[in-house]
Amino acid sequence: MDEFTVTERTRAKRLYYRAQYDRDTVYAILDAGLVCHVGYEIDGQSYVTPTAYWREGNKVYWHGSAASRMLRHQASGASICLTVSHLDGFVLARSGFHHSVNYRSVMILGHAKVVEDEADKIERMKIFINGIFPGRWDELRPITDQEVKATTVLYVDLHEVSAKIRTDMPVDDEEDYTWPCWAGVVPVVTRFGDPQPCPRLLDGIEPPGYLDKLRLG
Amino acid sequence: MDEFTVTERTRAKRLYYRAQYDRDTVYAILDAGLVCHVGYEIDGQSYVTPTAYWREGNKVYWHGSAASRMLRHQASGASICLTVSHLDGFVLARSGFHHSVNYRSVMILGHAKVVEDEADKIERMKIFINGIFPGRWDELRPITDQEVKATTVLYVDLHEVSAKIRTDMPVDDEEDYTWPCWAGVVPVVTRFGDPQPCPRLLDGIEPPGYLDKLRLG
Repeated sequence: MDEFTVTERTRAKRLYYRAQYDRDTVYAILDAGLVCHVGYEIDGQSYVTPTAYWREGNKVYWHGSAASRMLRHQASGASICLTVSHLDGFVLARSGFHHSVNYRSVMILGHAKVVEDEADKIERMKIFINGIFPGRWDELRPITDQEVKATTVLYVDLHEVSAKIRTDMPVDDEEDYTWPCWAGVVPVVTRFGDPQPCPRLLDGIEPPGYLDKLRLG
Repeated sequence: MDEFTVTERTRAKRLYYRAQYDRDTVYAILDAGLVCHVGYEIDGQSYVTPTAYWREGNKVYWHGSAASRMLRHQASGASICLTVSHLDGFVLARSGFHHSVNYRSVMILGHAKVVEDEADKIERMKIFINGIFPGRWDELRPITDQEVKATTVLYVDLHEVSAKIRTDMPVDDEEDYTWPCWAGVVPVVTRFGDPQPCPRLLDGIEPPGYLDKLRLG
């Protein structure tokens, strides 16, 4: 099995049975999401910013305005942590103590790097858009030089990475299984609603087929 | 309107029209979620950990094992950032540049404090459980002294807080509204699946009524 190397910082100290380091598991959790939470520190204060991301091979990308304080700081080489989490269910045990949630999460430690080359940036944005909406990039009004300049694209190499997963039923203390209350799992599911067309949509334009195939979670 | 005081660190630098500081808006976003992302730094490395949280008045609480490295570090008074975000939709514009997401998020800056008193800790846990599942606390096997000791409950006072919200349709460049591609919003909805009973559930125990009333997002 192809695994990320466990480091002192990614080795699980507790609940170690939930920690996983194999690449396929990490990639699958990353590929199931759209929004990550990026942590960084400025002047002694931690910040956590939600932002869209995408994976290409062993890199995770995110992007934003070149004027963004967050992105300018991250691009300066500071340490970041990029975390992706999916809530899969509420776990109701027979004691409060053993209540839990089912989830899948990935934590990536590293330093942000900047995609400098403009053609490279455009290719990344194309892959981002087409990764969610296959073929959409070529349907769009083409990107302009000014838009490319106004966009910062960052990435982190996946080296120091860990996944955590909890699945399945509550685990109660053995003597509590006769306690007379309901126990089990309430699944949490993310789904898409019906597409809402822009009121200024041109006549005769139907929702594209890829909207029926969106996946998340 | 009752608003949080804007500080240099919470004042939005860009897209300022999305930033909001009024207390009701912040509280509503917090109360719609279960999992937050807590950011902190240890030895020069940022970390972001997803964890369950709940709000009581002007405090946000989270908890975990007293043995947790994360919680022990946070309890030592380091700066933290607690971020809650809800993804509400994909925003498909006529240019890649104006693609976006609809979302609601809150960022809380501060320092974690510890709930020291044991009766206080128990009351907080009761409010947490009953806040999601009204009445469940009294159905459970009662909490033990050992479980109270093994649990750390932290909180942050809501002082330095901001919310960001994006709603509604794509905003395209005026000249792009005649571009012939679909544009609009694809809503993202979080819902609950059917409760899955524990295989060791005692005979005759039905799912409690509060499972039908769960809300999230």
